[in-house]
Amino acid sequence: MGIAFEILHTAGESRLGRLRTPHGEVDTPAFMPVGTVGSVKGVTPHHLAETGAGIILANTYHLQLRPGAEVVESLGGLHRFMGWPGPILTDSGGYQVFSLAQINKITDESVTFRSHVDGALLHLDPVSATRIQNQLGADIIMAFDQCPPLPGTPELVRTAVDRTIRWAAECRRVHARPEQAMFGIVQGGLDVELRLHCAARIIDIGFDGYAIGGLSVGETHAEMVEVLKPVAAFLPADRPRYLMGVGMPGDIYEAVKAGVDMFDCVLPTRNGRNAEAFTARGTLKLRNEQHRLATGPIEADCDCYACRRFSLGYVRHLFVTREMLGPILASIHNLRFFQRFMARLRELIRQGRLDIIPEEYPIVRETLTPEGCDT
Amino acid sequence: MGIAFEILHTAGESRLGRLRTPHGEVDTPAFMPVGTVGSVKGVTPHHLAETGAGIILANTYHLQLRPGAEVVESLGGLHRFMGWPGPILTDSGGYQVFSLAQINKITDESVTFRSHVDGALLHLDPVSATRIQNQLGADIIMAFDQCPPLPGTPELVRTAVDRTIRWAAECRRVHARPEQAMFGIVQGGLDVELRLHCAARIIDIGFDGYAIGGLSVGETHAEMVEVLKPVAAFLPADRPRYLMGVGMPGDIYEAVKAGVDMFDCVLPTRNGRNAEAFTARGTLKLRNEQHRLATGPIEADCDCYACRRFSLGYVRHLFVTREMLGPILASIHNLRFFQRFMARLRELIRQGRLDIIPEEYPIVRETLTPEGCDT
Repeated sequence: MGIAFEILHTAGESRLGRLRTPHGEVDTPAFMPVGTVGSVKGVTPHHLAETGAGIILANTYHLQLRPGAEVVESLGGLHRFMGWPGPILTDSGGYQVFSLAQINKITDESVTFRSHVDGALLHLDPVSATRIQNQLGADIIMAFDQCPPLPGTPELVRTAVDRTIRWAAECRRVHARPEQAMFGIVQGGLDVELRLHCAARIIDIGFDGYAIGGLSVGETHAEMVEVLKPVAAFLPADRPRYLMGVGMPGDIYEAVKAGVDMFDCVLPTRNGRNAEAFTARGTLKLRNEQHRLATGPIEADCDCYACRRFSLGYVRHLFVTREMLGPILASIHNLRFFQRFMARLRELIRQGRLDIIPEEYPIVRETLTPEGCDT
Repeated sequence: MGIAFEILHTAGESRLGRLRTPHGEVDTPAFMPVGTVGSVKGVTPHHLAETGAGIILANTYHLQLRPGAEVVESLGGLHRFMGWPGPILTDSGGYQVFSLAQINKITDESVTFRSHVDGALLHLDPVSATRIQNQLGADIIMAFDQCPPLPGTPELVRTAVDRTIRWAAECRRVHARPEQAMFGIVQGGLDVELRLHCAARIIDIGFDGYAIGGLSVGETHAEMVEVLKPVAAFLPADRPRYLMGVGMPGDIYEAVKAGVDMFDCVLPTRNGRNAEAFTARGTLKLRNEQHRLATGPIEADCDCYACRRFSLGYVRHLFVTREMLGPILASIHNLRFFQRFMARLRELIRQGRLDIIPEEYPIVRETLTPEGCDT
């Protein structure tokens, strides 16, 4: 086991923790920026580190398609490859196979699919997903799961749960690098009973941490929270809990209150590239004409590189003229926004005052993106 | 006069100098990265400064189209606008009007043209070009000139020279901010006699520095050097000499030997965005399959951020997957390449050994881009 997890403080179900990995420590609840193909889009590791990012995520599916795990390994492993000396988590590829690829065939043993890049016919199964992640060399790797879309038929969800459990055991068995921690994933759609059944089996297998997958994939915020609460509470208290692909500040807030420790999402960079900035009061359309003469920063009290150095009027100008620096600065700001939000959540857990968040961050009240946070 | 220029050492016609501006000092010969619309494309000022850039250039034409000089002024002037606390030079817009815009009418008084952005009908003349540059607030501004394409008829070149002289006097007269230095521009195509005539008149008017415009616009390298030598030698020895829009390392090397002190070019960023890296031995196509497993940096002894932190194999992967970080890193490397090249030229001027450059930098022997370095 390559990681150690310590709970420093609790408030209700919320936990303030510290996650130790071979590449450094992370305070939890933690938000992981997503470096899909081995780069957090638009941001150099220098600026990424400056946003306060501790652990980042990379996608096994994308990296296996290009450049391939062997190439990443030849180029020194994922940390050296990405130029990111801090902790990294890789997902198992399961989510992307079921959301991006053109599925050819799913059996109880494997998934056959066509690459979304070049249409090549490829396979992924528990053994290969684990072997690939061993080659990539992240600090934390994930069991290969089947993530059914929501809404799905009870049969589909049940089958996915059965496979997820069987595949998890197989992943655990073939995992070859003990310095890499491995997390199991709980599936089960919106069926709490099925979720708890899945969680119990995954816990029986025994992992270094537990993830909740298959949420934020089409259900409402209320539906998500309803499932999340009992499932998070059911997971071992002494292991990190990771809600995959979430999400909007409101989702994160509710999940932290439910006892979740880790999150990942592409929202900061994707929305940043598309000229949308997160602020405590809500999102800002950076191309808006009203910002033309705005001499202040994107967000008044933000300490990010973009806000320290540039006016909102300049950032708008960059988007209007399609300069690369626009997406770069908006991504930096959004990444810092999420890190500051997490830091504030941690502070308020320590103080037992999480309930003041909606007042400080009116954005948590905003409607939540139904399309979730796929990569 | 906002600048001071000191010659520290000479070797043949080459000069080692120091240029003092209200926003900092620059060692010369100096290369100015180009921040066309108010951003050196793809690079944050943090990384730009780290490449060793001292003074940078911004384009009056582009900034006047978007966002407009009034907006730049409202947002605190060009330095604050761009987040660049160092020295800045703005060109006069002349070159872009004649190369990018759709010219509607040129008279002895002004140029009427259609914006290449939205087709709007606009005017530029000596008074407005100077007023706009006064509003932008660069440390060094340029007189408004007419830059004829090469090859051009003798009549066209002669008319352009006459106008350039008349407009220079007008620019000098209306220049309203004494803390901004103003450079005059010598035109005259490939006609040395006409060039010297133009230079004499421009010198009579009296400027803080002198630029050679209208080269690297279609002529061969040999033709350029042939004109450059007598013209550079003719310019006042105690003022900075600036060869506009140049260029390739070979061009810069010959121009430094001819006594030129300042250069600007979009090559480092434009070629970087297009997956071409400069190295002492020549250019490198970064998408090339042969780099797939390259564990070393883009250039072996380079100290830039990209070379310190990432493998060539990773940079290739970024271009193959169309990640923004590819153009970002290639631009950083190329910008640093040009700054290191200039630093080496300065070192060798001091040592009186400029002749070893072609041995250290085989790239200077490469054929020179005939299309020049327009922006």
